[in-house]
Amino acid sequence: MSVMRGLSAFPITPATPEGRVIEADLRRILTRLVRAEVDSIGLLGSTGSYAYLTLDERRRTLEIALDVTRGRVPVIAGIGALTTRDSVALARHAAEAGAEGLLLAPVSYTPLTEDEIVAHYAAVADAGGLPLCIYNNPTTTRVTMNHALIARLAALPHVEAIKMPLPAAGTIADEVAALRPLLPEDFVIGYSGDWGCTRALLDKADAWFSVVAGLWPDMTLTLSCAAQAGDATGTRRTEERFQPLWDLLRRYGSLRVAHAAARLMDLTEAQPQPPIMPLPEAEIPALRAAIRAMEA
Amino acid sequence: MSVMRGLSAFPITPATPEGRVIEADLRRILTRLVRAEVDSIGLLGSTGSYAYLTLDERRRTLEIALDVTRGRVPVIAGIGALTTRDSVALARHAAEAGAEGLLLAPVSYTPLTEDEIVAHYAAVADAGGLPLCIYNNPTTTRVTMNHALIARLAALPHVEAIKMPLPAAGTIADEVAALRPLLPEDFVIGYSGDWGCTRALLDKADAWFSVVAGLWPDMTLTLSCAAQAGDATGTRRTEERFQPLWDLLRRYGSLRVAHAAARLMDLTEAQPQPPIMPLPEAEIPALRAAIRAMEA
Repeated sequence: MSVMRGLSAFPITPATPEGRVIEADLRRILTRLVRAEVDSIGLLGSTGSYAYLTLDERRRTLEIALDVTRGRVPVIAGIGALTTRDSVALARHAAEAGAEGLLLAPVSYTPLTEDEIVAHYAAVADAGGLPLCIYNNPTTTRVTMNHALIARLAALPHVEAIKMPLPAAGTIADEVAALRPLLPEDFVIGYSGDWGCTRALLDKADAWFSVVAGLWPDMTLTLSCAAQAGDATGTRRTEERFQPLWDLLRRYGSLRVAHAAARLMDLTEAQPQPPIMPLPEAEIPALRAAIRAMEA
Repeated sequence: MSVMRGLSAFPITPATPEGRVIEADLRRILTRLVRAEVDSIGLLGSTGSYAYLTLDERRRTLEIALDVTRGRVPVIAGIGALTTRDSVALARHAAEAGAEGLLLAPVSYTPLTEDEIVAHYAAVADAGGLPLCIYNNPTTTRVTMNHALIARLAALPHVEAIKMPLPAAGTIADEVAALRPLLPEDFVIGYSGDWGCTRALLDKADAWFSVVAGLWPDMTLTLSCAAQAGDATGTRRTEERFQPLWDLLRRYGSLRVAHAAARLMDLTEAQPQPPIMPLPEAEIPALRAAIRAMEA
């Protein structure tokens, strides 16, 4: 079964203002995920600041993570970069270091053509030789993947999953139904955007790529299990408690909210990398209340 | 008078597939610009691949350029980066190396808030202490700057110019007229998007940030001088010859077209950095014809 299925927890990568990853804090955050036995760790995703760290720090982060997990929970490493050269180098390192999967966003500056995106994925997937998840995140990459492009990428060797954004229009059920016939058998369709992901699981998506699971893995597992079991009523009841947090995530973005929450939970003192600013001070009481509501 | 006025030539930065800048080719390309006496060189702009080169190679590129120009033509250095840390470091280096100006785009991954953009510009402008041009390029940065944000940035110390994209709607004349009262006296409003820039100069913009000037500085100077002198008829007549090139630039983007043209002109063998692909082979005859038309 693909390493990409189920609940993938996306932790922050705590780092100093100089961009140096804080090893002790990273270990503390990851240890919680291993203990909770999430299905995988989505290391160095958008919430994991991959776009803001040097290649050296990214390699170091992965090595620390693999030393924490020691094979107990698979690590999927974010290897997106503006150049094919950098993503290829990260993919090779991840494979050598022992990562179980790769997560690749079509990071762009000059808008990419579809052929450029496909060639980029082909080169990086080939270099890594590990199960690769397409990181479809138009909010950050500015690449809007149509279904034909997704089908082209999904047909490449090693590509076996996609992390979808919540649909801008229409339902997840319709989207999944439209995508399935275009993709190889057993291809993993997962979603991110925590506030919409139990709906995705209830609608037969295969994975939830989750920011909240990076901080509250046990509670998120309870929620994802209910949704994966098709228990709509139980899911709805449990999820009510998450609502205030969903509101903050939608308003301020995962990077800012997850760092602020990790600070409130004494997991780290780290802030996002500038120019990204911390969650405004005025919202800290609301965040504190949202965490209390969830843990109630 | 601001170093940002007039015709600023934006050359490519020739580099190997490994991302190493090719010094001899860079010198060859820049020497043409110095001989033609363009008003400034916009080094390491989008066409100069700044987003695809390491910080070390960017520093090296600037040092080579300053050795070529030796004060005869001012160099405005692109210092955009995803982190404030990197842009600050590049700004400091540029000032120490002897650049005459800075060009800063709000490069983003996580969408930036306006406060984040302003704090980023303030920190970088302060670190450099050189005349700074706001690089307003929504196509690549995904940041759409409204007039209020532009006014906030323009009020910062050292910020003295803006490089605007061609307006998505409305005329340049209306846009310039709307912006002027919001900006400090003598603030430089310039445009990029070569196919619309003589219109900008005729409509009293202060600068043309030009890709074609990076390859054909003499011809572009003729065109920009006619437009700056308000000679609409002469401008139109001269510009007719550029039309086939404008068409290719609009269709394939400056990075791909400028590299292909530089190859046809035997200035370099360099290609864009992958994942950016070269101009399709099938378009080379059209490019050759466009160059011939322009040089006729």
